[in-house]
Formats: sequence, structure tokens, C-alpha cells
Amino acid sequence: MKLRLGMIGGGQGAFIGGIHRMAAALDGLYELTAGAFSSDAEKSRATGVLLGLAPDRVYATYEALIAGELQLPASERVQVVAIVTPNHLHFAPARRALEAGFHVILDKPMTFSLAEARQLREIAAASGRRLLLTHTYTGYPMVKEARQLVAAGTLGAVRKVYVEYPQGWLSAFEEGGDNKQAAWRTDPARSGAAGAMGDIGTHAFNLLEYVAGLEVTQLCADINTVVAGRRLDDDGAVLLRLGNGASGVLVATQVAAGEENNVRIRVYGDRGGLEWQQADANTLLVKWLDRPAEIRRTGTGYVGSFARHNARTPAGHPEGYLEAFANLYRNFALALQADLAGHPASPEALDFPSIAEGVRGMAFIENVIASGRSDTKWTDFTV
Amino acid sequence: MKLRLGMIGGGQGAFIGGIHRMAAALDGLYELTAGAFSSDAEKSRATGVLLGLAPDRVYATYEALIAGELQLPASERVQVVAIVTPNHLHFAPARRALEAGFHVILDKPMTFSLAEARQLREIAAASGRRLLLTHTYTGYPMVKEARQLVAAGTLGAVRKVYVEYPQGWLSAFEEGGDNKQAAWRTDPARSGAAGAMGDIGTHAFNLLEYVAGLEVTQLCADINTVVAGRRLDDDGAVLLRLGNGASGVLVATQVAAGEENNVRIRVYGDRGGLEWQQADANTLLVKWLDRPAEIRRTGTGYVGSFARHNARTPAGHPEGYLEAFANLYRNFALALQADLAGHPASPEALDFPSIAEGVRGMAFIENVIASGRSDTKWTDFTV
Amino acid sequence: MKLRLGMIGGGQGAFIGGIHRMAAALDGLYELTAGAFSSDAEKSRATGVLLGLAPDRVYATYEALIAGELQLPASERVQVVAIVTPNHLHFAPARRALEAGFHVILDKPMTFSLAEARQLREIAAASGRRLLLTHTYTGYPMVKEARQLVAAGTLGAVRKVYVEYPQGWLSAFEEGGDNKQAAWRTDPARSGAAGAMGDIGTHAFNLLEYVAGLEVTQLCADINTVVAGRRLDDDGAVLLRLGNGASGVLVATQVAAGEENNVRIRVYGDRGGLEWQQADANTLLVKWLDRPAEIRRTGTGYVGSFARHNARTPAGHPEGYLEAFANLYRNFALALQADLAGHPASPEALDFPSIAEGVRGMAFIENVIASGRSDTKWTDFTV
Amino acid sequence: MKLRLGMIGGGQGAFIGGIHRMAAALDGLYELTAGAFSSDAEKSRATGVLLGLAPDRVYATYEALIAGELQLPASERVQVVAIVTPNHLHFAPARRALEAGFHVILDKPMTFSLAEARQLREIAAASGRRLLLTHTYTGYPMVKEARQLVAAGTLGAVRKVYVEYPQGWLSAFEEGGDNKQAAWRTDPARSGAAGAMGDIGTHAFNLLEYVAGLEVTQLCADINTVVAGRRLDDDGAVLLRLGNGASGVLVATQVAAGEENNVRIRVYGDRGGLEWQQADANTLLVKWLDRPAEIRRTGTGYVGSFARHNARTPAGHPEGYLEAFANLYRNFALALQADLAGHPASPEALDFPSIAEGVRGMAFIENVIASGRSDTKWTDFTV
Repeated sequence: MKLRLGMIGGGQGAFIGGIHRMAAALDGLYELTAGAFSSDAEKSRATGVLLGLAPDRVYATYEALIAGELQLPASERVQVVAIVTPNHLHFAPARRALEAGFHVILDKPMTFSLAEARQLREIAAASGRRLLLTHTYTGYPMVKEARQLVAAGTLGAVRKVYVEYPQGWLSAFEEGGDNKQAAWRTDPARSGAAGAMGDIGTHAFNLLEYVAGLEVTQLCADINTVVAGRRLDDDGAVLLRLGNGASGVLVATQVAAGEENNVRIRVYGDRGGLEWQQADANTLLVKWLDRPAEIRRTGTGYVGSFARHNARTPAGHPEGYLEAFANLYRNFALALQADLAGHPASPEALDFPSIAEGVRGMAFIENVIASGRSDTKWTDFTV
Repeated sequence: MKLRLGMIGGGQGAFIGGIHRMAAALDGLYELTAGAFSSDAEKSRATGVLLGLAPDRVYATYEALIAGELQLPASERVQVVAIVTPNHLHFAPARRALEAGFHVILDKPMTFSLAEARQLREIAAASGRRLLLTHTYTGYPMVKEARQLVAAGTLGAVRKVYVEYPQGWLSAFEEGGDNKQAAWRTDPARSGAAGAMGDIGTHAFNLLEYVAGLEVTQLCADINTVVAGRRLDDDGAVLLRLGNGASGVLVATQVAAGEENNVRIRVYGDRGGLEWQQADANTLLVKWLDRPAEIRRTGTGYVGSFARHNARTPAGHPEGYLEAFANLYRNFALALQADLAGHPASPEALDFPSIAEGVRGMAFIENVIASGRSDTKWTDFTV
Repeated sequence: MKLRLGMIGGGQGAFIGGIHRMAAALDGLYELTAGAFSSDAEKSRATGVLLGLAPDRVYATYEALIAGELQLPASERVQVVAIVTPNHLHFAPARRALEAGFHVILDKPMTFSLAEARQLREIAAASGRRLLLTHTYTGYPMVKEARQLVAAGTLGAVRKVYVEYPQGWLSAFEEGGDNKQAAWRTDPARSGAAGAMGDIGTHAFNLLEYVAGLEVTQLCADINTVVAGRRLDDDGAVLLRLGNGASGVLVATQVAAGEENNVRIRVYGDRGGLEWQQADANTLLVKWLDRPAEIRRTGTGYVGSFARHNARTPAGHPEGYLEAFANLYRNFALALQADLAGHPASPEALDFPSIAEGVRGMAFIENVIASGRSDTKWTDFTV
Repeated sequence: MKLRLGMIGGGQGAFIGGIHRMAAALDGLYELTAGAFSSDAEKSRATGVLLGLAPDRVYATYEALIAGELQLPASERVQVVAIVTPNHLHFAPARRALEAGFHVILDKPMTFSLAEARQLREIAAASGRRLLLTHTYTGYPMVKEARQLVAAGTLGAVRKVYVEYPQGWLSAFEEGGDNKQAAWRTDPARSGAAGAMGDIGTHAFNLLEYVAGLEVTQLCADINTVVAGRRLDDDGAVLLRLGNGASGVLVATQVAAGEENNVRIRVYGDRGGLEWQQADANTLLVKWLDRPAEIRRTGTGYVGSFARHNARTPAGHPEGYLEAFANLYRNFALALQADLAGHPASPEALDFPSIAEGVRGMAFIENVIASGRSDTKWTDFTV
């Protein structure tokens, strides 16, 4: 049976709501059953019509959605609530949903502040419900492969990590016009303490810790607001120290004019290195000190169990961003199905970002902004 | 409202059935409602359970599916039938479905023989129903862009076309083991007159005529069966002459050991050329005689209406094979929705492969195999 | 001691003469000592001045050069004569030089006709002198590596070979203006029986036979003159059959608008394949049926003896066209030095194109043009 | 007439000496006439023999070379002295050579310390002689093109610069064996205050200031010695502030296992960005906010005057590291020839690194090491 999914946010004109819906649909594991798509009741209703939802399952507010669904029999009620609103509207609906017994899918960054994130951690733990945080990039098969290779020690001890996320779409003062995405992402009241660092820096940070299997312990940040009039950072570069003596660099910018979303990560151990970039997402380069570099590819027979589990097609059929996003949804569904069936879920199914990653992401935002303002070189990474 | 979809073929272990289901699901425009998934009734039933279908909508045979659905009220009955069986089982169900008033989605090549294809053309015309032939590669946004640039005369008059589809998966005698995909694709009784030329040569041929906007008029083929014991061709190279005096080369092989599915097309006019390859599907290179080459990208603001219509995300979010496949399904649904609403569909929605492409594809198979056996250099391309 | 080099052709405005001089200079193994740089005596003189030659070593004609040098003591006389004139002026000076006891470096194609080539073969054999034919592409380290891997059987038995040489510089009627390169290369009286097939087709052919270690036995060619008014072919595609049952395709065109010199070769055996292209000359991709592809690189420690011998720098220092050209000169010098010293030269030094390759290249021209005019599919490759 | 060149250092087994000799030879503008190739007189002599020098022009010490040459008539005496010794042996011979009236070519970094660099600046100014500092990467045609585009304002005001130079060759304790290159480069007594920062960090720094046309004003460095037992840094990452409010990141490491010399630079202005990397040296990507990225290529007709001047072949003939190096030698020669002829040299000829770049490079070393040791975030870049 498909999991019944309710959605909060994601009305027409939103970007990420549509992505979540495609990700949920791709594998036929969810059925979008209910929604509160907008704070504008009429707009919510219109979106519901467009999506073919039963009118009585389309709500004017998230509170109404949760209340309304609770009144339905458990066999009809949505099981999972996806929250795809701007950052300042993550915590309240997530809290309510968890407390009401729903599993939650939450867009990143997890909350508006680290304090909220810590609180949500407690609430989630108390609820016994699962939470998926949609850090897309860790859903790519070749990112899974990278992590598995590093974890297996194939590269030796990790020494250096470089992660970068250059974008160019905020090179001009887009928030001055009618670009809704730009407007909320550069607004401290809706985005939080950080702009670029929250929007894409957290992705880079999560990707780095995921692949390297190490935690950042100290950082030294140069945080800039390049475009005149902008109210949050749109650019940053961060020196990093990690758990085992490794070090690294994180770059995230939204003013690299002409760049799309070229997320890229490189990790070097004492025996070899690896490189992955979203622009060539089905390739993982593995480089060696003394023999030819290897091109590892999605869908091949030689990749590890995590990469294999997260591919839908044989080698040679490019899988992209939506498939990576859908992998998050799929693994979450597999974990929930295992719960429902009373089995343990496989390690591959359980490999999705959740509360712990969300708390560290919010800590990254607060630490990196603090470091950006500090004259001291190294700031301890506190959570 | 979602279009109700019935599927013929695509039981567990099949490859392309799952692809069709994901393509149908991605945009929420179809609901898989009925199926005859296997000639083995029990296997069909089990697939239906797995997919969450109502048991009474899962049939043991395609005849039963068509008969059963016809007994349902029109408002419940499937509207579209997708046929995803091996080639020898395309014609009969397609004929029945069209004659019974269903729209049809058919995997390529369209039929087992050119004679069948010609017959299906008559049947389809008489039926007044629509048919989608799933030549995936023409669903990629940057392939659409390529076609639109050529059609607009941007490159000048087309002079040279090169298309290639190298695979390596049949480098050994895979059909000797339990590889079901290899077994039917190399079996003349199930695949038809051609092996590689039918399986992937038709894709290359379709891509070429689609992008170049020209028809092949003569060909000269070198067709080989490289692997000992194989009963159909697994390799070929074809010299081509096209309508306006252009010429070209088509290569399709399944014994290029180590290759995945690196479909690639290059078209040159008198002012410039273009290059697209599936391995870098979101990029279209446009080269000029006297100025820098351009990198055109999916999801950007500067691409033409066809590329724009066929992308789901902004630039920088890689779209892949499933999205391309889903574009075929989406455009077909948009055309059907327009029909239902009594509007004309947009040119972008109507841009999907259908009967005409299917007949030419079958003609390609017969002409290329005939040329391969001929000692005369040029064989006229007859349809 | 440096080898004393005389040059015939290569006056100002020529292209390939300057390339030869840089190739000769790079490793300090030759000293340009004499020249007959142009059929225009004044122009020859001026070039000599520019190059800093002693005035009495600059001649008005090649006959004068040979005669003049013969009057000098052997210890001063040039030892090697490089002939860098258009094709119709290859044979006569080469014959004279060999007969006079000079070693000869000859630009490709070897002669104006196959008959001349056969004759030159006799003359060279009788002379006991060495001849270098400058097929540049076989001088690249990674082409050497490709050949060595194939020869060692690493890829298994060769099944398919694809070679292509697309250029765009003759997309318009360049010979109508003052483009001297275009003028002679499209002139049957200076270029010979073929245009593109002689100029670049012979390079592609040589590269293919060199890397694959196989000889072409039959061919089927589509030869075109695309640009109106042109007197020789500017485009061709050729189906190939090779010695051991392998087959292939050769493409050479000068009307692929926007292309530079993207020579590319791919060879597939039953265990794997390889790919090299000039645009990424220091990389050799080696692909495998069942494990990750490898990126082999110039200057690394793991490459074979031929690649190692032909690199000047450690990995990471791109080596290009001039270095490849210089490898021909260097190996030729090493062979001559070994002769002078009375040692056998190493296999690596002896690995340069010479008379045999030149005769086969001229045979390629004549066979491919004949096939282009024939209505029969396969033409035997006769020498 | 060729310029007469004397060389100090560069005996057998050295790396950079051979590079300098090939760079000097390529264009026929220099004649290697004299040398003091090693502090071991016998080794110096043997190298001279190998290079075909007259025995009386091969010296046991650099002092002897300078003294000996001064005794020759000006018309025979070397005009230029190339110094290719380890860093601690740059200053003394450079000083002597300049004071004796020779022009000097000096490998980078210019000296052992910033103090020496400042002193050499005075000496050079007083001498009236020219000095070439061989920062190779600024010799690449597409790096010249990048600089010219930035200088013309094509990208708008520069906002971000990223430069990186990852190598992997010092991933293990190479200096413990017989790797001479590793030995001196990791030895404080021969290399100076820095290891990786001096060896390759200075290249990255020079490339950045050259292309961006801006000076670094502040930096914040994380400098590491990753390999146990090593006595100098082998890794670093540096946050940068530049003259006009731009900021950036510089990465240089010798422990990125599996990397060759993938120097890469990206510069972003408010209208577009550019990217160049040595591994694809003949390509310059230029990216735009709102139109397709461009691929600018060496040897084409559309590049600017600096790129054109620094290419030897038409588009499609890859030019590499040696050609870039030779461009430095060639431009230096053209400047000297202009001096000798009493003309002003062209801006393109004068575009080579010299004293000013050398002083800034030494300042980079001292500032970056100081910053690495500092707990304060930003260190002013002092010269």
C-alpha cells in the first residue's frame, strides 16, 4: 500500500514543493492525499484542484490539516506530512505534526534557529516518529559510493576535504523585483541568521560530513554580502578542521555569475582521492597515488551496496536531481514500511538525513556566521 | 483528473515496464489502474499486488484486459494502454487496443515487421486514437533544443550528420545464460529481423531524422554478428544520404566493450555545428565557424520553447533518462487532455514520436538489413 | 653532436615548415644548417636570414641545395634533409636526397601518387638511408600507450575500430581568396588524387593501423565534395574491414563547421576498449566490461615503455602537438645516432613512421577514391 | 641573431633545467652557449659534453662562468644568464650576473627570502638589465586571454577569485628516499621559509594577481605539514581580500593523493565569470549571467592580441606546458631584441613576469607563513 502523504506549503509558484511531489511520485510509494498548500486559503484550494485532491482533504492552514486528518480513521488519515515552507515556518508545523503522531519530511535547513533545532530533536525523540530532512545531494548514488569507499578505508586516512557550491543566480539584486525565491531567501525574517550559508552552505556542509565520515570541529569563515542592499550573506568561504586531524575548505556563494549549482566534493586520504560533482552526477572519480584513476559509474555491477540500492536503471541511463531527491523519499518509505511490517529496515534504507544532520546544519549556520564576525581565526564548532 | 492507464507486459524482471511506470508517475498525470503484466497469470497477479492495483483490474492476458475494461463504465475504464512487451507482441495488442477505442503507448520498435507497421498505421488512422512510440532520446530537453536550432536555420543548410549508439553489454554470449534481456533481444522469433539495428539502431535513426529535420533516402550498411553463436546482428555501421543532399554516418553496436549507452549526435550546417551526447545530457554544444562555441544548458532562460517546455527544474539540476522518458508521457497526456477539453494542443505538447516515426523505424530495420546483405553500395530507403 | 639538417620548402607563410623547425629544435638534437626554403630565390634568401643561417647555405632550389652540400666536406654537410613542400614536390627532392646519400624527413602524404610511392620505396631501399614520414599523431605518448596495450592483448582480440578526423576550416570556398593553405590543398595539380582524404584521411588511416596493429583489407567509401566549386573531395566516410575479421569506420571531413582537429580513435576488443582524442591528448581512457574505466595519463609511472620514452615531463605538464611532432624528430635522431655509433637503436627509437606507412597511405588515397566512385560495396585494399 | 645563453644549474637529474633548455630552444631565439651546470665540476663538464657545448664554455662554478664570459669579446659573450638552481642559490648568482651586465632569467620563487628579493630589486634597477621570472602559467595563451578579458571589463567588476594548485606527489615521505626534487623542496635550508607555499603557492598567487588584475591586501591562512617528519608545509588554504573589495580563496597542496598539477583559476565579476585549468589548457570557459557559456580556444581568430601573440599553431593543435614556458623565453627575447634594435617592444612582448612579481611572490611566502602561525584572522599583506 502506498503511504498517504500530506503536504504543508508548495502552492503554485513555489519551487521545492513541486520537487517534493515528483520525488514522492516517482516510485509509486506515496499517494498525495491531503495538503495545506498556502497561507492563502483560496490558493491552497486551487492547488488542490490542480493536483486532483479530494476537496475535503485540502486545508486552509497547517493547523487545520493536522486537526482535520486526526479526525479521520487511521486507515484514511495521512501517515506522513511533508513541510516545504520557508525556513521560519518549519518548526511549528513539524512540532505539531510529530506531536500528533505523523512522520515528518522537512525541507532543509531544519529550522529557523539552532535553538529550534535542539527543541525539535527533543520533540522528535519523544514522539517516536521518523523525520526525513531533504539534503538532496546525499541521495545521489555516486555520493553514496563515495561515502562507502571512504568508510571502508579505501583511500586511507582522510587528510583533506574540499567542498564547494557555487551559484550565480543572486549576482544582482533579484529580491528587488518579483523573484519570490530570492525574496524569502534573502529575508532575515524568513530565512534565518544566514542567506547563502543557510540555503546552500548547509548542503555543502552536510555533504562533506556525510562523505568524509568526519565532523567539523573548528572553522574560520569569511562571510560576505556582495550585492549592495542585500540583508543576508550571499557568499562565503570557510577553512575547516575536522575530527581526525584532517582539514578542509568549504565554499558557498550565490554571486559566482554564470554558475548553476555545481556542487563538488573532493576527499583525499593517504592512498588516494575522490571527486564528485553534480554536473556529472553519475561519475565518481577515484584517483590513486601510483595507478590510473578510475571512473566509477552509477548502475554498474561493481559499485557498492549503497550505490546499487539507490539506482533505478542499469549503467548508461543518466539519473539526476529528481532521482536523488526521490531516493530520500524512497528510503524513508522503505524504513516506514519496515516499521509497519515489524522488520528492521536495511542499512541502505536507513541511510537518509534526519534530526542529527538537521541539528548539525543549524549549528553550522550559527557557528559560521559567528566566525564570520569574529577577529579570532578559529571558532570552535559547538552544537 | 489523472488519465487512467492500463499496462500490457512489464512483470517483475522486465526492464522497460518499470521505466514506463516511473515515467507515467513522475508528473502525476497518469494513474496506473489496470494491467496484464505477464503471460503467466500468477505472475501478472503478483505484479498487480506489488503495484497496489485493485485485484479485479489485474488480468491474465491482454485480451482479457481489453474485454474487461470495456465492460466498465467509461468513467472508470482505462483511457490509455501502454504496451511494453517484446517486439513480437506489439502489433496484436496495439491493434486490439486501438480498435477498442483506447489510446496506445507502445515501446519501440513499433512492430515486428514493416508490414505490421504499415497495417498499424491504417488501424490507428481509422481508430481516431492517439499513439505514442517511446523513442526516449527525443524527450531530452537539449535534443529538443538541437532540433529547434536546426529547424530555425541557425546552423545554415545541414550538410553532415553523425549519430552513434555504442553499447558493450552484448560483448559476450549473454543469451547463453539467464539474461532475459539478452535472450529475447537476440532471438529472431521475438526481436524481428534485426538485433542491434532494431534495439538501438532505430533509436539512433529516429534521433537523427528528428534533429536534422531530414529523411534518409539511401543507405549503405555493414552489418555484423560479432559474437559467435548469436543469431542476429550485434553491430553495424551505415553510410547515409539524406533529403537535401546531406550525408552522414550511423553507428550502432552492442559489442563496444566497456561502453554504456553513449548515444551521441552531431549535425553540421554551413555556418556551424552541434553536438549532444546522453552522457552529458543537459549540455548542447553549438559550434561556430568564426566565434566561440556555446554551451547551451537545460533549464536556462535562453533556450527555445521546446527545451523550456520539457524541463522540470531550473538550470543546474541534472535531468536524466527518466525525465526524458517522462517527457514523452507528459506530452502525450497534455495532448490527450487538450483533446478532452476540446482545445488544440500546443506544438510542444504534440512533439512526441508516433505512427510516422514507427513506420520509418521499421523501414530502417528492413532497409538496413537488406543493405547489409547486398553487394551494391547504395540501397534506396523505401517505406 | 647535433645532426645537421637541411630544409626544402618552409618559406615564410608556410604552415608546416615552422612546425618542423620547432620539432627539430625542441630537444637540441638537430641544427638547421641549410635550406632551400622557396622556389622564389629571394624569398628563400630572406627566410635564411630570418633563421640566422649562413648565407652560403641558403639555396635557390632543392637541386642547388643537394649539389651544394655534396661539395662540402662530410663533416660540414647536412646529414638529414627535411622536405616540407606541397605533395607534388615530395618525390623528386626525396629521390635526389636519398640518392645523394642524405637521410630524409618527409611530410605526409609521402608522394603525389601511389606509383611514386612504390618507386620511392625502391629508391630508399637501394640508398641504405633512413626516411621519416611525419604522421604526427603517432608521436603522442598516449597513442603509443594505446598501441602497446592493444599489442599486448590487454583488450583481447580487436573487433571494432572507429577513427575520425573532423575539421571545419574548409566549410566555405576558402581557395577563392588568399588562403594559401586552402589553395594548394584543394588543387589536384599540387595535392594529388584526393583533398581531405589525402590531407587528413591518411592521418586517420595511419593512426588506425598503428594503434589497432591490423591492416585494412577492404573498404567502402562515401566521398563527397560538399563546397560548390571545390575541385577535390572535402569530406568522406569509409566502412572498413581489417585483417583479423575486425571492422571499423573512418571519418574525415573538412566541412564540419566549428570543429578544429579533433582526431579521435576508439578500439574495442572482446575484453575492453580504449579511446583517445587529440583535444585531451594526455589522457587515454581504457574501458572494461566489468570494472571501472581507467584514465591513463602521460608522464605517470605506470605507463608502458613507449609512452614513457615519448614524454618529456612528469605527469601534470600537458604535452601537445609540437611535442608529438618533436617525438618523431627525436626518435629519428636517436636511430641515426645509434647507426653512427654502430649500436642497434632501441625499439622505442625505431618506432616512427617511414616508407611502409607512406606506401600504405598512398594506397589508401587511391583505394578510397576508387571506392568512392564505385557502385560496388566493397573495394579490396590493394597496394 | 640568436641570443647567447648561459645556464647556471640544470645538471643531469635536475628537472627544471631541462625545461628551460627546451623552452629556450623551441623558437630558435637562443643558443645555449655556456654553462655552470653543477657545483660538482665533473658533473658540470659531463652535462656540457652531452649538450654539445664548447669545453671552454663549461665552467665549474657560476663565479667562473661570469668571470670567464666577461673576458670574452662582447660579440661572443653570453647575453643572458638563466639561473635554475634551488631557491637558496638564486640571489647570489643573479646579483653577480646583473652587476656584470647580463640579463637574467630566474626560476621562481625569486629568492630565498623577501629581504633578498627587495635587495635584488635594487640591484636590478641599478643594473639597467632585464629579468625574467619563470612563472610558467602566465605563459599560457588562454591565461593571457583571461587577463585581457578581465582587464577590458568584460566580466564587470571582479568580485570573487578562486585559485587552486593541488598536487599529490608529496603524499608520502618522499624526502626519506632518493627523490632529489623532494629532498631540496622540503629542506628549509634550500627551499626557504615555505615548502608547498613557496613551490606552488607562489605560482597560484601570481596567476591570481595576473588574471584578476588585483592585488591581495589581506590574507588568512591555514598552513599544514601533513606528512609526519616533514620539515616544511606541504599543504595550505588561504582566504584572501583583494584591492577593490573582491575576495577569494587560494588552495595549494602537495598531499592531494592522485592529483597531478591541476592548476585552476576562476574569476567572477558582476556580469560573468571565467574558468581555466591547466589540464585543459587550450580552453577558456567564459560564463554569463543570462546567455550560453562560451568556449574560447587557443589559436582561433577571435581571441585577443595577447592570446594570439602567444600561440604557435592554428586552433586544434594542443599547446602545452613547454609552449607556455617557451612563451616566457620568447617574449623576453623579443623585448631584448627590441632593446638591441632601439625600438620599443610591443605590450605583448613585455608581458612577462619580472622583479615586481618576484617581490610580491616572496612577500606572499612570508605573509602566508606568518598568517598560518597567527591566531588573528586577517594578516595585512605587507611588501
